Amino acid sequence: MSNKTTQDFNRQFIVTELPKDKLSTNHFTMQEVEVPEPGPDEILIRTLYLSLDPAARAWMQGRTYRDPVQPGMVMPGFILAEVVASNDPDFVPGELVESHSGWQDYAVLKAGDLYKLPWREPVTHYMSVLGVTGKTAYFGMLDLGQPKPGETVVVSAAAGAVGSVAGQIAKIKGARVVGIAGSEEKCAWLIDELGFDAAVNYKTGAILKAIAAQCPSGIDVYFDNVGGDILEACLFLMNERGRIVCCGALAYYDGVPPTAGPRGIPGLVVTKRLRMEGFIVLDFYDRRRQAEDELATWVAEGRLKVCEDIIEGLENAPQGLVGLLAGQNMGKRIIKVA
Amino acid sequence: MSNKTTQDFNRQFIVTELPKDKLSTNHFTMQEVEVPEPGPDEILIRTLYLSLDPAARAWMQGRTYRDPVQPGMVMPGFILAEVVASNDPDFVPGELVESHSGWQDYAVLKAGDLYKLPWREPVTHYMSVLGVTGKTAYFGMLDLGQPKPGETVVVSAAAGAVGSVAGQIAKIKGARVVGIAGSEEKCAWLIDELGFDAAVNYKTGAILKAIAAQCPSGIDVYFDNVGGDILEACLFLMNERGRIVCCGALAYYDGVPPTAGPRGIPGLVVTKRLRMEGFIVLDFYDRRRQAEDELATWVAEGRLKVCEDIIEGLENAPQGLVGLLAGQNMGKRIIKVA
Repeated sequence: MSNKTTQDFNRQFIVTELPKDKLSTNHFTMQEVEVPEPGPDEILIRTLYLSLDPAARAWMQGRTYRDPVQPGMVMPGFILAEVVASNDPDFVPGELVESHSGWQDYAVLKAGDLYKLPWREPVTHYMSVLGVTGKTAYFGMLDLGQPKPGETVVVSAAAGAVGSVAGQIAKIKGARVVGIAGSEEKCAWLIDELGFDAAVNYKTGAILKAIAAQCPSGIDVYFDNVGGDILEACLFLMNERGRIVCCGALAYYDGVPPTAGPRGIPGLVVTKRLRMEGFIVLDFYDRRRQAEDELATWVAEGRLKVCEDIIEGLENAPQGLVGLLAGQNMGKRIIKVA
Repeated sequence: MSNKTTQDFNRQFIVTELPKDKLSTNHFTMQEVEVPEPGPDEILIRTLYLSLDPAARAWMQGRTYRDPVQPGMVMPGFILAEVVASNDPDFVPGELVESHSGWQDYAVLKAGDLYKLPWREPVTHYMSVLGVTGKTAYFGMLDLGQPKPGETVVVSAAAGAVGSVAGQIAKIKGARVVGIAGSEEKCAWLIDELGFDAAVNYKTGAILKAIAAQCPSGIDVYFDNVGGDILEACLFLMNERGRIVCCGALAYYDGVPPTAGPRGIPGLVVTKRLRMEGFIVLDFYDRRRQAEDELATWVAEGRLKVCEDIIEGLENAPQGLVGLLAGQNMGKRIIKVA
């Protein structure tokens, strides 16, 4: 289905060194190796799109929900691929699959590592609103956040791939949604394009007051993508029986781990009867098809806007991830590989 | 039912000054006033027992789940009382009631401020295992902690009124229970008298290592009465999908509020998919009778040991609370007033 010519070599990005502080492009080296041959029951896939996600930086930091990245490994990441050759009768060339084979053109895998996807236009939605980040927003907001009509929902990293979808889902459920982002441009985009009710630029200082000003009725759901000072500020503004969805900790990924956590824990958690809950989207994958279908329906109905930040060329993956960690993106950053 | 002579004056402890650091007996003054007369629909009660609870110190610190204590007020607290005189036909002299009228011999209240209790021997159980602290342990452990057979449950302030019951309930549910307490004597008592599987004296230093040594399979439920360093240590030892029951923050009550919270929040909450949830026992009071009945059944069956630390005389309430905050008690500290 991809009409590109098949290459006769496989480009791979190897992690040469783990970052001690900020990630840079120097932590990766590209190498060209032979395209692997599928053995018995194996499938050769070719990467079409590579998902860039801030969590990838956390994987380089140590133990998370997956084994840590080690020097010498191909950099891991979610990809959208097509089947090129197959020794498994359940997979035929041209089929679309999702996998986790990382920053390379080709990979040989078995059926258990592949997830079949029906063709859909544009296929990039499988890397954004229907992908890992869209489903993270879906399950986190609906299962953990449980916003009710009229409630106030705050989303941090709101212009990012997860936050932009999470906020829109809360709007669909009738909540008043306040986004927190890192520039005036992003804040304007959240309100004008995505329909958020308000936005706060966290770089203008006095974050507690700034959020409080946009949340006159307090906060019922805080969808936390960042941790740190913004989590602490929201803790103080939470209403009784509020829910804090612990989705990520962007503030901590690209640098030295913090020496302390937010004030107010556990005191405010007790007195306000808060629930803070962490999750990983993979835990909800028994319902992934349901999520993809409902998200696609909202997109088709025009209720959920999709914003993709697509960079051409696998060779740009390192710079793309470094820029993502610096907050350069609006919406979902994807590398077009083939 | 109380066979004491009725006094013709009412002793009251007034809060003369709010503590800025540690609470002392100097923050209270006793005054003697007239016994109040019940007006229309009002009920005069006489305090039999006064419950001393660490949370009382938090009420003096500022806003919690109740209005803060102010100078000039009678010190609030849960009491067990008998009806002395009544202008409400639903209450007759001699009936046993629970109320929140605080550190005084007598109070005049309306029906909405009283909770009728059937006579039971010993009535002190209404201030301990069947009282606020016993029910706090019950709802916190069962509704939020949800221990399963074979899971590891850690309880802090385990020799206290809530912790000692919470740990025993987890044992009844088949969990392996590790208590954290502040002396060797308390640790021995937890194991020998209450049947805990292990105990850790947090005053012997290196708390993370000490807890880890007693939790070779990690922690599934942490019932947190203290916050601070012990919460931080347990966060690092939690198993995936563990539950942290945020019941109290003893470490913070009697002094200056901390400048930082525990490390690992929100990072570990995300990667381990933890749930941290705060609660106040009053939120569960639609099921309070059920809790009292089940707790009483466990006591009658010998499966739940009751430990009460009863001090004679209302005049000793200030010193009793100061000592409680210093961890002098084993089990539930109660003042016998009449």
